[in-house]
Amino acid sequence: MSDSALKRVTPIVKESESSPMREMMKMMEEKKDLLSLSAGEARFDAPKELLDSAIEAMSRGKNLYTSTNGIPQIREAIAAFARRQWGADLDPGTQILMTVGGMEAIYLALRIVLEKGDQVLLPDPGWGVMRTVVERRGASVEHYPLEEKGSWTINHEAILERMNEKTKLVVLNTPSNPTGAMISREGLGALLERAREMGVFVLSDEVYHNYVYAGEHASALGFDSLENLIVINSFSKTFAVTGWRLGYAVAHPWLIRQMGIYKESISLCSFSIGQWAMAEFLGKSEPYLDQARAFCRDNMERMVARLNAIPGVRCAPPQGGFYVFADFSQIEPSSQKLFKRLLDGGVAVVPGAFFGSQGEGRARLMFACPSDHIDRCLDKIEKTLG
Amino acid sequence: MSDSALKRVTPIVKESESSPMREMMKMMEEKKDLLSLSAGEARFDAPKELLDSAIEAMSRGKNLYTSTNGIPQIREAIAAFARRQWGADLDPGTQILMTVGGMEAIYLALRIVLEKGDQVLLPDPGWGVMRTVVERRGASVEHYPLEEKGSWTINHEAILERMNEKTKLVVLNTPSNPTGAMISREGLGALLERAREMGVFVLSDEVYHNYVYAGEHASALGFDSLENLIVINSFSKTFAVTGWRLGYAVAHPWLIRQMGIYKESISLCSFSIGQWAMAEFLGKSEPYLDQARAFCRDNMERMVARLNAIPGVRCAPPQGGFYVFADFSQIEPSSQKLFKRLLDGGVAVVPGAFFGSQGEGRARLMFACPSDHIDRCLDKIEKTLG
Repeated sequence: MSDSALKRVTPIVKESESSPMREMMKMMEEKKDLLSLSAGEARFDAPKELLDSAIEAMSRGKNLYTSTNGIPQIREAIAAFARRQWGADLDPGTQILMTVGGMEAIYLALRIVLEKGDQVLLPDPGWGVMRTVVERRGASVEHYPLEEKGSWTINHEAILERMNEKTKLVVLNTPSNPTGAMISREGLGALLERAREMGVFVLSDEVYHNYVYAGEHASALGFDSLENLIVINSFSKTFAVTGWRLGYAVAHPWLIRQMGIYKESISLCSFSIGQWAMAEFLGKSEPYLDQARAFCRDNMERMVARLNAIPGVRCAPPQGGFYVFADFSQIEPSSQKLFKRLLDGGVAVVPGAFFGSQGEGRARLMFACPSDHIDRCLDKIEKTLG
Repeated sequence: MSDSALKRVTPIVKESESSPMREMMKMMEEKKDLLSLSAGEARFDAPKELLDSAIEAMSRGKNLYTSTNGIPQIREAIAAFARRQWGADLDPGTQILMTVGGMEAIYLALRIVLEKGDQVLLPDPGWGVMRTVVERRGASVEHYPLEEKGSWTINHEAILERMNEKTKLVVLNTPSNPTGAMISREGLGALLERAREMGVFVLSDEVYHNYVYAGEHASALGFDSLENLIVINSFSKTFAVTGWRLGYAVAHPWLIRQMGIYKESISLCSFSIGQWAMAEFLGKSEPYLDQARAFCRDNMERMVARLNAIPGVRCAPPQGGFYVFADFSQIEPSSQKLFKRLLDGGVAVVPGAFFGSQGEGRARLMFACPSDHIDRCLDKIEKTLG
């Protein structure tokens, strides 16, 4: 940074924002024969039919721009899907915006809704990037704790207690990354009602909605009003095509319009082929969704059992999602030291401290992958910690 | 906007930003049997080999996240391409960032480089979204005129005259949308040198670099220093796959790092399949590029000839790009009225006034499409204006 034009730039990106993760990635890259349980995505096959549709769309020349909000066909398919799954009654013309993964939907929502001085409630443990986006907007973050009672859960009382006149927005992530915690239907109803009364937005990130192993997933779309609601969803996560960058937001028409106009200056539109392929596939996706959920449940149970068999490790089965958030504190209270120890033993995990104050002494391990991979990783972890 | 949470939002998106374009799109949608010359993208076939590579990558399971900056293979392919095309010596590890089309590259660059109170020089005529992004960042816009001497050109003197201590960044678009104007190699050299001395950034948007019909394209990458330079490029435009949303930025390692970390919170990564396919195809893309350029030149000449044959229409051949920016002012001085008249006659164009103060009385017509389409459109335009 010795050059004169560069000297005129006041950095808005703090190196510290990304460096722990980049540092970790670098250590992982330098390590040979490393097995990984650290991915933030599933490692099973995308639906064959979906890929076939994508290949056909590509060959048919669907490689050009779509409208910014997305082709009508995919928005209609989403409305039909939401009706079947959650009894939602969405207007595809005004209430749905296709985005570059769930991430762009979150970025757009926070950029439009927040301003300097606003306060946002985020879950702890929770996914770190959310905090960055909120703080870069000039808003401040308060955390509400997720609760570990057997499995992790989202207790709406813990949120309601912390909501006050400064609160502009509450972020839900149900099922949660990294804990798999979900909010109950009753809890969600009470939260949405109180938030509406107080003029507080609820952003419900439901990208893991299909991957539920205990009880039923309650979607914020299962309630009547979109008045103060933004629901984030993603085909990337659901169908193991994260590289396609295809997600969507559901919200009040005014917000969708604001987000859409803003999107024109970020990404213009979302991946055309993915939209055409999903529009064709979504209506017949239930068998795949059932099968993928069963696959993940088996592997979750396998991983939980093997972790609990290691003396000093404690791991409750998650309610949903792709991850366990296991407690290694009896063996190693520092999650960073644990990470290094496991890395030296040949397995990459994500240090729990990345996810907030409740993460120390923990690690996130991804189980949405083949069972023999889980076995090979757990063999190494056992050996390292035994 | 009658709901209480929504009432707490101060809109950062002005409806007026997008409404002329959306208004236009709406009128176009309502019109039956409409032929269009209004697209901002080519309407010829993407390279067959590229599509084959993409299909293969899809079948091989390359559907997952890539690193935020892009897979090493595509960044190496870009460095090799830039060496062959412009004699540039780029470090793929630190100087290249893959983005969601050229648009995300522009958004990221302007967000990182600009701050409140900065001044930016934009071309007039020029592409409107640029102004929106600059102003939303709290920076102000000054325009420099492109010059119509026969063809449109970018005169670097017009830029130098307007650069002062408040100028933070100069935007070049060469070849330009909508005029096709290019900057000469000498002009570009003089501009880059003076900008470096003054600590001013130059953002050179070169997404139409392959589509040049008069003289040679001078890339900012053909000069030694990346010190104060951001070059924007796009596979979307070059290879007629705009729906893939795949572009890139080349800049100083510090800027690329800042932009990359910021990108983590917008889009996480760019389209995986496109990266794999382009990494394979880029090194053997020259025959396609030559062929596509010849195709566009033929159609440009056809369109220019047919427009000039209409009494009262004046259209110089553009130096490059996908568009002519023809002068209809003798027939109709208002570009909006001209648009409506042509629309009623069955052909969509883009009103010149969208592109700035020099656009009144003009229209942008896209010629990167099959010649029979051009003929059918020009038949209708002739009939409407004749």
